[in-house]
Amino acid sequence: MTAPDEATCSLIKAVDLVGERWTFFVLREALAGTTRFSDFRARLGIASDVLTARLAKLVDSGLMTRRAYREPGQRPREGYCLTEAGRQFNVVLCALQQWGDEHLPDTTSTVVYRTVDGRPVQVRFVDGEGAVVAAGDVRPERGR
Amino acid sequence: MTAPDEATCSLIKAVDLVGERWTFFVLREALAGTTRFSDFRARLGIASDVLTARLAKLVDSGLMTRRAYREPGQRPREGYCLTEAGRQFNVVLCALQQWGDEHLPDTTSTVVYRTVDGRPVQVRFVDGEGAVVAAGDVRPERGR
Repeated sequence: MTAPDEATCSLIKAVDLVGERWTFFVLREALAGTTRFSDFRARLGIASDVLTARLAKLVDSGLMTRRAYREPGQRPREGYCLTEAGRQFNVVLCALQQWGDEHLPDTTSTVVYRTVDGRPVQVRFVDGEGAVVAAGDVRPERGR
Repeated sequence: MTAPDEATCSLIKAVDLVGERWTFFVLREALAGTTRFSDFRARLGIASDVLTARLAKLVDSGLMTRRAYREPGQRPREGYCLTEAGRQFNVVLCALQQWGDEHLPDTTSTVVYRTVDGRPVQVRFVDGEGAVVAAGDVRPERGR
């Protein structure tokens, strides 16, 4: 393994994009179905200016899009929906939470990841045949 | 979904522990087999003081342990080995890199994750039966 290439390394770019606490929670809240600014703010207990900045970064980075909505008697407002790239981020969120549940002391898992028909799922390594491989049997290697 | 509980939320604790660029790369380098301070420094191109701080945090957090070694004619030095919790972090690293490869523009994957006998692997959701579930069919839900 050698020094990561700042310009092209997908891990550096992914870390720089989401390596901020609130970004993870905004994405998890969006995955749970939240779309309105006021709902993100109320459910996450996050300051408006921080939420505005996090949502703008997620839109700029292609993980979310703005979508106007209007309730009867109200002015039009903007909602936030996940793109396909944003929806696929649930694998990373679940992997990180699962690791924390298993290896960090004094933590509890308040969220479970389920299929749309209610089956609980976990994140695992799988080989080309779709068979589960133990994490201890996997190593990163340089080169394709 | 509601506001995460600072004291016990496993996702908050995991993000706060590793949500820093160099920590991810030190862990990936360790997973690839690096143990010596001088090798981490040379391979990652990281400043000594930053590397010292990152390794100390990883040791304090139980992801790595110090182990003394001595080469002929040299003074004893300390190496760094992953604990089981550190080794299991490869699922998170692979999930994040895989997501970056697929969804961030202008990135290349310079690292592949393989089984010890050389088969490439990916990170996927699997259900209780070990069957792969598409990420688009999975949602986070509050409660166990």
